[in-house]
Amino acid sequence: MANTNTGAVNGDANKHIVRATVVQASTVYYDTPATLDKTEKLLAEAASDGAQIVVFPESFIGGYPHGANFSISIGIRPDKGSEDFRKYHASAIDVPGPEVDRLAEMAAKYKVYLVMGVIERDGYTLYCSILFFDSEGNYLGKHRKLMPTSIERVIWGFGDGSTIPVFDTPIGKIGGVICWENKMPLLRTAMYSKGVQIYCAPTADARPVWQATAIHIALEGGCFFLSSNQFCRRKDYPPAPEYNFEGAKEKLTPDSVVCAGGSVIISPLGEVLAGPNYEGEGLITADLDLRDIPRAKFEFDAVGHYSRPEVLRLIVNDQPANPVTFKSNTTKAEEETN
Amino acid sequence: MANTNTGAVNGDANKHIVRATVVQASTVYYDTPATLDKTEKLLAEAASDGAQIVVFPESFIGGYPHGANFSISIGIRPDKGSEDFRKYHASAIDVPGPEVDRLAEMAAKYKVYLVMGVIERDGYTLYCSILFFDSEGNYLGKHRKLMPTSIERVIWGFGDGSTIPVFDTPIGKIGGVICWENKMPLLRTAMYSKGVQIYCAPTADARPVWQATAIHIALEGGCFFLSSNQFCRRKDYPPAPEYNFEGAKEKLTPDSVVCAGGSVIISPLGEVLAGPNYEGEGLITADLDLRDIPRAKFEFDAVGHYSRPEVLRLIVNDQPANPVTFKSNTTKAEEETN
Amino acid sequence: MANTNTGAVNGDANKHIVRATVVQASTVYYDTPATLDKTEKLLAEAASDGAQIVVFPESFIGGYPHGANFSISIGIRPDKGSEDFRKYHASAIDVPGPEVDRLAEMAAKYKVYLVMGVIERDGYTLYCSILFFDSEGNYLGKHRKLMPTSIERVIWGFGDGSTIPVFDTPIGKIGGVICWENKMPLLRTAMYSKGVQIYCAPTADARPVWQATAIHIALEGGCFFLSSNQFCRRKDYPPAPEYNFEGAKEKLTPDSVVCAGGSVIISPLGEVLAGPNYEGEGLITADLDLRDIPRAKFEFDAVGHYSRPEVLRLIVNDQPANPVTFKSNTTKAEEETN
Amino acid sequence: MANTNTGAVNGDANKHIVRATVVQASTVYYDTPATLDKTEKLLAEAASDGAQIVVFPESFIGGYPHGANFSISIGIRPDKGSEDFRKYHASAIDVPGPEVDRLAEMAAKYKVYLVMGVIERDGYTLYCSILFFDSEGNYLGKHRKLMPTSIERVIWGFGDGSTIPVFDTPIGKIGGVICWENKMPLLRTAMYSKGVQIYCAPTADARPVWQATAIHIALEGGCFFLSSNQFCRRKDYPPAPEYNFEGAKEKLTPDSVVCAGGSVIISPLGEVLAGPNYEGEGLITADLDLRDIPRAKFEFDAVGHYSRPEVLRLIVNDQPANPVTFKSNTTKAEEETN
Amino acid sequence: MANTNTGAVNGDANKHIVRATVVQASTVYYDTPATLDKTEKLLAEAASDGAQIVVFPESFIGGYPHGANFSISIGIRPDKGSEDFRKYHASAIDVPGPEVDRLAEMAAKYKVYLVMGVIERDGYTLYCSILFFDSEGNYLGKHRKLMPTSIERVIWGFGDGSTIPVFDTPIGKIGGVICWENKMPLLRTAMYSKGVQIYCAPTADARPVWQATAIHIALEGGCFFLSSNQFCRRKDYPPAPEYNFEGAKEKLTPDSVVCAGGSVIISPLGEVLAGPNYEGEGLITADLDLRDIPRAKFEFDAVGHYSRPEVLRLIVNDQPANPVTFKSNTTKAEEETN
Amino acid sequence: MANTNTGAVNGDANKHIVRATVVQASTVYYDTPATLDKTEKLLAEAASDGAQIVVFPESFIGGYPHGANFSISIGIRPDKGSEDFRKYHASAIDVPGPEVDRLAEMAAKYKVYLVMGVIERDGYTLYCSILFFDSEGNYLGKHRKLMPTSIERVIWGFGDGSTIPVFDTPIGKIGGVICWENKMPLLRTAMYSKGVQIYCAPTADARPVWQATAIHIALEGGCFFLSSNQFCRRKDYPPAPEYNFEGAKEKLTPDSVVCAGGSVIISPLGEVLAGPNYEGEGLITADLDLRDIPRAKFEFDAVGHYSRPEVLRLIVNDQPANPVTFKSNTTKAEEETN
Repeated sequence: MANTNTGAVNGDANKHIVRATVVQASTVYYDTPATLDKTEKLLAEAASDGAQIVVFPESFIGGYPHGANFSISIGIRPDKGSEDFRKYHASAIDVPGPEVDRLAEMAAKYKVYLVMGVIERDGYTLYCSILFFDSEGNYLGKHRKLMPTSIERVIWGFGDGSTIPVFDTPIGKIGGVICWENKMPLLRTAMYSKGVQIYCAPTADARPVWQATAIHIALEGGCFFLSSNQFCRRKDYPPAPEYNFEGAKEKLTPDSVVCAGGSVIISPLGEVLAGPNYEGEGLITADLDLRDIPRAKFEFDAVGHYSRPEVLRLIVNDQPANPVTFKSNTTKAEEETN
Repeated sequence: MANTNTGAVNGDANKHIVRATVVQASTVYYDTPATLDKTEKLLAEAASDGAQIVVFPESFIGGYPHGANFSISIGIRPDKGSEDFRKYHASAIDVPGPEVDRLAEMAAKYKVYLVMGVIERDGYTLYCSILFFDSEGNYLGKHRKLMPTSIERVIWGFGDGSTIPVFDTPIGKIGGVICWENKMPLLRTAMYSKGVQIYCAPTADARPVWQATAIHIALEGGCFFLSSNQFCRRKDYPPAPEYNFEGAKEKLTPDSVVCAGGSVIISPLGEVLAGPNYEGEGLITADLDLRDIPRAKFEFDAVGHYSRPEVLRLIVNDQPANPVTFKSNTTKAEEETN
Repeated sequence: MANTNTGAVNGDANKHIVRATVVQASTVYYDTPATLDKTEKLLAEAASDGAQIVVFPESFIGGYPHGANFSISIGIRPDKGSEDFRKYHASAIDVPGPEVDRLAEMAAKYKVYLVMGVIERDGYTLYCSILFFDSEGNYLGKHRKLMPTSIERVIWGFGDGSTIPVFDTPIGKIGGVICWENKMPLLRTAMYSKGVQIYCAPTADARPVWQATAIHIALEGGCFFLSSNQFCRRKDYPPAPEYNFEGAKEKLTPDSVVCAGGSVIISPLGEVLAGPNYEGEGLITADLDLRDIPRAKFEFDAVGHYSRPEVLRLIVNDQPANPVTFKSNTTKAEEETN
Repeated sequence: MANTNTGAVNGDANKHIVRATVVQASTVYYDTPATLDKTEKLLAEAASDGAQIVVFPESFIGGYPHGANFSISIGIRPDKGSEDFRKYHASAIDVPGPEVDRLAEMAAKYKVYLVMGVIERDGYTLYCSILFFDSEGNYLGKHRKLMPTSIERVIWGFGDGSTIPVFDTPIGKIGGVICWENKMPLLRTAMYSKGVQIYCAPTADARPVWQATAIHIALEGGCFFLSSNQFCRRKDYPPAPEYNFEGAKEKLTPDSVVCAGGSVIISPLGEVLAGPNYEGEGLITADLDLRDIPRAKFEFDAVGHYSRPEVLRLIVNDQPANPVTFKSNTTKAEEETN
Repeated sequence: MANTNTGAVNGDANKHIVRATVVQASTVYYDTPATLDKTEKLLAEAASDGAQIVVFPESFIGGYPHGANFSISIGIRPDKGSEDFRKYHASAIDVPGPEVDRLAEMAAKYKVYLVMGVIERDGYTLYCSILFFDSEGNYLGKHRKLMPTSIERVIWGFGDGSTIPVFDTPIGKIGGVICWENKMPLLRTAMYSKGVQIYCAPTADARPVWQATAIHIALEGGCFFLSSNQFCRRKDYPPAPEYNFEGAKEKLTPDSVVCAGGSVIISPLGEVLAGPNYEGEGLITADLDLRDIPRAKFEFDAVGHYSRPEVLRLIVNDQPANPVTFKSNTTKAEEETN
Repeated sequence: MANTNTGAVNGDANKHIVRATVVQASTVYYDTPATLDKTEKLLAEAASDGAQIVVFPESFIGGYPHGANFSISIGIRPDKGSEDFRKYHASAIDVPGPEVDRLAEMAAKYKVYLVMGVIERDGYTLYCSILFFDSEGNYLGKHRKLMPTSIERVIWGFGDGSTIPVFDTPIGKIGGVICWENKMPLLRTAMYSKGVQIYCAPTADARPVWQATAIHIALEGGCFFLSSNQFCRRKDYPPAPEYNFEGAKEKLTPDSVVCAGGSVIISPLGEVLAGPNYEGEGLITADLDLRDIPRAKFEFDAVGHYSRPEVLRLIVNDQPANPVTFKSNTTKAEEETN
C-alpha cells in the first residue's frame, strides 16, 4: 500500500492539512434538477470557504423518503405504493448519465473533491450509492450500499463487493460507507485495509447514539470520519396526498423536523472537530491534519500491528456479482470466476 | 441422477400413483404449541384419506404476519415494531429443536411425507423455511427462502445455495420453493436440474394470477406442482392492539378474510388436479401419476433435450455462506471454498 | 443499462403510452410475394388505428407447416418429404435480401416498429427467425429460434447466442422470443437482463395453457408480453396432395381450424390488455403504459433486487457459433473465443 | 446456534431479567492473597444485592502496572526492569491452580457467575486473561487477550484463537473481551457469531472516548456491554522505589488517581443502564432484560440478516497455536492440523 | 536443494572464495536522504576493497531509536510519543518505493550484493526488515522481523512466514535474520533447511554475549555468520528535546557511545574471521572459503545427517498472513490456503 | 505448566537458591565397580560442600572410548574391533539393574539429586544415556542420546522421543541433553517447552567453542546450563595393546591429556557462575538463583512470548519407537500410534 500523500512525510506542515466541508441540507424531493441546482449553490459556498473536499448526505440526489412506507404491509401491495415507487424511480439517476456529467462539471468548476449521495437507477432496481469526483472534474467511481436497513430493503437493491473503493488522491485516500453499513464490522475492516484516510459517512441517522458510532469508527479506523446527514422539515417533501408520512406518530406541521441532521467531523484521535449540528441546514468545516493518522495508528492499527491475521482473517469477494453475464461483455477478471 | 422410483419403470400402474394432500389452514398466531396441535389434527385427517405426502403452507409454524408492517417507515423504528418482532421471534422454532422433533414424530405416526412451512430461528435472525420429513419420522433437511418479498425483508434473513435440496424418496423426488421465490427463473432451473418431481410451493399469494404461475411452472418443469396457502380470517390473529393490521385499507371484522387461500395441485401436463380452493380452510387431495412426467418431458425438458448449454449456462453456488467460519467446525468442503 | 426512454421519467403521462398491435393472420402458404402483400394490408390497417409497433406471428413469411410431417417416420424418408422441404425452402427468404428490403420499406411507409416472424434461409438450412425494423425503415437485426420443438427440429436449424437482441428504441426496449423458446427459463432470464420492456412472442401454440405462460412471463419479466399467433384454416394451405395434413386426427374440411390463434397482450402487472382472440384473423391493440414497468418491478425484479447473483448466476455465450470460420473474415471478438 | 435461554421465549417476563454487577476496584498490588480476600468481600456485597453475574476489571488478580515501564527503552534493559517483572510474574496465578480453586469456591458460595480478570502465568510468559465460573462453582474456561496494547506487549504474551469462548448458561450467553481488544472489529465479529448476549469487557481504559466504544459495541453486537475498570490511587501500589510510576507526568501524591474507572453497563439498544462511575471504587448494578436483544437485532444483526457473507467472510482459526506439540498430549483436533 | 555454486565443486580454489564486508556505522537519524548518501559512501569504500557482498546493520535506513521509549508507560500514552512515532514513520521507506530504487542502483553501480537493514512502512505499521539486492541491481526480496524484542513491539509490527527467504546466487545462498530473532531456534532451523550459506545477522545487540551466539550459530548451522551492528554516539541522534534518551541511566555527552557495535564475521568451523569491532564506525572484511561448509557439515548437519525427523519435526507456515484478503488480488497459492 | 517451585513466588530469597555441583572426572575404564566406588567418593565430597544436585559426565559409568576407532575403516572390520566392543559391552549396565540400584542408594545416602552419564546395555545394543535420581533415592528415569556423533554411531544406538524427560522437583525442573545433541535446535526447543530450569549437559567436548554453545543455550533457553565433562589422561585407560589410541596424532605419554574437561556452569543471563575448568579432575559448584529465570525470560522466552507458533511449530513424537511390539505388552497410548 503506497502512501502517495500525507501524514507520511516529514517537512512542511501545511502540506498535511486538508480543509473538509460536510453539507447538511435537504433534497428537493421528487425534483432532481432543482436538487442539482441546490447542490451547486452549496458547493459554491463551501469552495468560497476554501473547502478541498465536500461531502453530501445519503441519497441527496434522488431523496431519502423519510417516514414513507410505500403503503406496504406483509402480503399487501396497494397501487399507491407502486406509484410512489415509480415516481421515486423517476427521480433517480443513471450512472453514468447526464446528472453525473453535471456533478463532474461542478467539481471541476469549484475545484473540490466531491462525495455525493445519490439514488442510482440500474434498470428498474435502485441502489443507494455514493459517487466520487476529483477536483478536476473526473468521475472516480461509486460505492453501492451493501445492505439497506429495514424497509429500505423494499426500495433499494443490495450492492456487491466490487464497489467498495478507496481512492488514492493528492489530498488523501478517500472512501465512503453509507449510514448503517457503518455498523458492519467486516465492511469497515475492508475499508481500513484499503487504507482509507478520509472516511465519508453519508447517513440518514440523526439519533444521538450515532455520535458514539462516529467516534468509535474514527478511533477504530485511525481515520477522519465525516458524517453528513440531511436536515429536513416536513415541507421539504411534497404535501399529502402526493407524499404521506405514514410513519409519523403525530400530526406534522410544515415546519416539523423529520430529520435532525447531526453531521459531524471526527479526528483519528476521537476528537470532535466540527459539529454535530442539530440546528438546521448548513455547512460544517474542519481542517484535517493528516499527520494525526500516524499519531493515532501508533496506538492502534486494526489492519496492521494490532491485527492477528493467523487467528482472524477477512476474505473480501470484490468481484462483481451479476445474475446474468454475457460473454461478449466479460472482462478477464470475471471470466476467471466463471 | 438415478430415478429410484416412478414414472421410469413399466409395470403395475399403481406403483406410479402417489396420493398427495395440500393443507389450506391458518396458523394459531403467536401460539406455536397450539399450531402444532392443529398440525396433528390436519395430518390425521389427511392420513385417514390415504395421503402419502402432506404439504403445509408457508410459515405455518411461526405464522405469516399478514397486514403487519411492524410500525416501521423509512428512517422510523418505533418500539412497538421491535416488540412485535420479539414476540414473532419467540414464536419461531430452532432447527433442530423440540418442535422439529415433534413434527418428525407426527410424520412417523401418520406415515406420511411431511413438507412443512416454518419460521426458523437462527440466533436472532429468522428464516422462512420448509422442513422435510419422511414417512418413518426422519428429518430430511430444509430449504431456506432465498429472497424474501418486499417488507418480508425486514423480518426474515436470506437463505443461501446450500439449502435448495431435492430428496430422492420412494414416492418420488421431492423439493420445495416458497411463494415468490417461484418467480425466480434461475432458482426453478436449479430445482429442475436436481430432478424435482413433486414440486411443493408453500405460498402466501392468494391472487388469481398465482394460478397462471402454477400452471406455467408445472409445464416448464415437467413436474407436479403443489401449492399450499393459508386461509386466514382476522380473528385467526390476536386482536388489536396486540396485533394490528396496519396495512388494512378498511375496517376489518373478525370474519374478514385476510388470506384467501387458492391452494391447488397441477399435473406436469398443466392440468388442474385439485383446487384451487378459495372458500375456506380444508384439504385438497389428488393422485399423482408419476408416468405423466416422461409424457410431459417428451415435449419439453428445460434441463435436457430442450436446453442449450453451450449458449445458456447456470452456475449454482450451493456452498453455505456464513459470515463467520470457525476452523474447528469447518468441513472439508467448506475449507476448499475459502 | 441506460434507460433512454420510458417509465423512468416523471412528467407528461402521454410520453409513456405506446400503442401496440398484434396481428393474428395466416401465411399465404407457398406464396411469399402474396404473403408480403397481405403483410402490407395488415400494416396499413394497424397504422390507421395509431399503432406504433406491430407484431406478426411466428414464421408468417415462409409459413408454419401445421399438420405436416414431411412424410417421415423413424428410419423412413420418402421422396415426398424431400420434395416438400424443397418447396418450403424455396418459400423462405434470405436475410438480408429483397424481401427484407420490402419489409423495411413498409415499416417506414407506415411509420411503425415491425416485428416479423420469418423462415430464414441460410444456404440450405432454414431458421425460424424474427426480424426487427424501426419506424424509419431500418432493419435492426434478427433473432433465430434457439431450440425448435419436436419435429420442427427436422426442418429448422438451431440458433446461437449471438441473435438474442433487445433493441433500445424511443418507444421502449424491444425483443422477441419464439413459441416454446418462451418456456426456456434461462433464455427468458437473458432477455430480462437485457432490459426487455416490449417482449414479443410470435408463437404457434394456440392451447389454453399458453395463456398461463403469457401471464407468468409478463409477471416474471416485469414487461409487456405480446403474443402473436396465426389463425389458419385448412384452406389457407395448398390442397392435398400438394400439402397433406398427415397429423390430422379426423377428416378436415377446408374451413377446419388448424391453428386457433389466441393472440394476447398482457401488462407487467399480469393484466390482460387485449385478447385472447380465438375467433379468427384480426388485429388486437392495446395502449402500453410503460410506467407500469417500474410499478411492477417495485415488487419483483428477476435480474435486479430479487436476484441472488452470488447463488445463481447465468452465463450467456453470445458469441456466434459457426462450424467453419475463415481467418480472413474473423473479427477480433470471435478470435478471442477460438 | 441453539438458544437455550432468554429473550427467545414468550411468557413470564421475570425469566428474562438478569441482575448484573460490575465491580470497580483496585488490585492489592504485589499481594495476590490480599486481592483474593478483597474479591470475596466485593462478591459478598454484590450477592447481597441480588447479583447473578459479577464482572471484575482487567487483571484484577495480578494487577495492572499503571504508569510502569519496567525501566526499558529501545535497546536498553536495566536490571530493575527484570526484577520488576520477576515480582509481577510471582504475583500471577497458574490456571488451573490454587487461586483458581479459591475463586471457584467463592462463585459457589455466593451463587454468582463470576467473570474475573487475571494475570495468568504459563511458565515464564504471562497472559492477560479472563476466567469464567458458573454459580455452582465450576470453572468454565478462559479468554486470553489476543493482542496486548503498546508496552503491554513487553510483559504479556499473545493469546490465540482457541480461547475466545462464549458460554451458553441459564442466564444467557456470556463472553469476554479485554480492553483494546474491543477495538478489533474481527474479534468482535467472532464473538457476535458465537451468540454473545452478556458481553463483558474488563478494561484499563478510563478515557471518556471509551464510552463511545461501549455504546457502539452494544449496538453493533446487539448485546449487553458490561465494562469493568479499576479505580486506583497511587497508594494502591507499593511506594517507590519498589514501584515507580515512570510514566507520571507530575509528582503523584498517595491520593492521586491513576486510573479513574468509568465502569458502565449498556443495553443492546445503546442505553446506559448504570454508570459510568468516575468517582471511586464501587459496584454498579443493572437488571438486564434479555428481551431487548431480539428487539435490537430486529434492526441490526451483524452476523445474521445484516451480514453479506458472499462478500465479506471472516475465517477464525480457533485451533490452539503452540510452538511445540508433543504427540502424547495431542488431541484429535490438533492432530488434524499437523 | 541445488547447490549452484560453491563448496560443492572441486577445482580452482579461488572460485570458492567470496569477499564479504560488514558495515558498522550509524544512521543519520530522522534524515533518510542523508542516510542514503552515507550508504553510497560506505558501499564505494567496500567495493574498492573488492567486496562482493556488503551487509548493513539493522534498521540502518530509518534508524534504530536507541534509548527512546516513546514516552509510554503501561496505560499512559503522551502526545510526545505519538509525535515521535509520526516522525519515525515519516523516516521509514515504502517497499517498493523510490528509496528501494536508489539502493538497487547503488548495488549495480558498485557491483555488490547488498543486504540492507531498513524500517519498512506498510500503511501505518512499520516493520524492521532486511532488503536483498544482487550485484546487477535487482531487488531480490525482503525479510521482515518475525518478533520484535521488548519495547520494539510498540513501534514495529510482526512479520510472517512468507518473508524468510534464502536466495540462491552465484556467490552462495544468502539469507538474513535480525538481532534477537537469531535466538529463535525454530527460525534458525528453517533457515538451515533452506540451505543458507552466508547467514547475515544485522543486529542492535552490542553486548559481549552476542559473540557466543555468533559462534554457536555458525557451528550449529554450518554457515558463515556475518553480524552487522551500528556504532552510534549520542550526537548521531537529534538533540533533546526533539530526541530524548529516556532510557539513559546517566547524563549523556554528545560523544557518549550509545551502541558499541561488535560487528563480526565467523566461519562455519566457529573461527572468528574478522572483528569484533567495538572501537568505532568502520568496515570489516573477510574472505569466505565456501569449502569450509562441507568440511563443517561432515561433523554436524542440523537439517541432514544429524536430524531426527521421526522424532522432531518443524512445520513452517510460509504463507502470507494478511488480516484482509481481496479476491481480486488473491494469487492461486493464497487461495489454496484460505 | 504448573510451576511447583522456584522463581515464581515472592518471599524468602533463600528458597530460590539451589547449590549445584558439576563433576569433572574420568571413568575407571573397563572397571565398572571401581567407577561406582569413585562415584561415591565424589558424591560424598560434593555433599559435604552442600550440593543439592550433582551432575556427572557423559558415559561416566561405562566409559567414553577416547581415541579408539575399534580398528575399523570403511569396509574393513578386524577381529580386534569386535573384541574391543565385546569388552565395552560388558562394562555397560542394564537399566534397571544392580548398578542402578547402587546409584539410587548413593543419592539417598548423600541426599542429592544425581544426574549420571552411563552406557546403557539393552540386549546387544548400547545407548549413551543419562540417569536421574532424586535425593530420596528414587530412580526418576533416563534420557537416551538421540543422535550419536560421527564414529559413536558404530558403538551406540539411537534413542527415541520417549526419553527426553524433564522432572519437576522441589529444587526445580531438571533435564539433560548429551554432548552434541546440544547442537540440535529442535531437541533443545523440546526441552525448553518442557520447562527445563536446570539443564544438564554431560559432554565429551572439551574444545573452547563449546563455551560459546554453553552461553548461547543458557540465554536461548533462559535456564541454568551445567556442563560436565571428563578430564582424562592416557593412563586412565588400559595400556596398549588392550586399549589403543588409534586416533592419537602423536605419541602419548601416560600423562597426556586426552580429554581436557572444560566443565562449566552458566546462568540464564549468560553469566559464567563456575568454571570452565581445563586443569584437571575436580568439582565446580555454584549457587543457582532460580529467580534469574523469570528475570531472563522477561527479555526472551523461546517457547512463550517470543515464539511465533502460527509460523513455526515443532512436532515432537514422544512415543517409544520399537522395532518389534508384542500386543500383550502394548499400552493404550502405544496402541493408538500403531
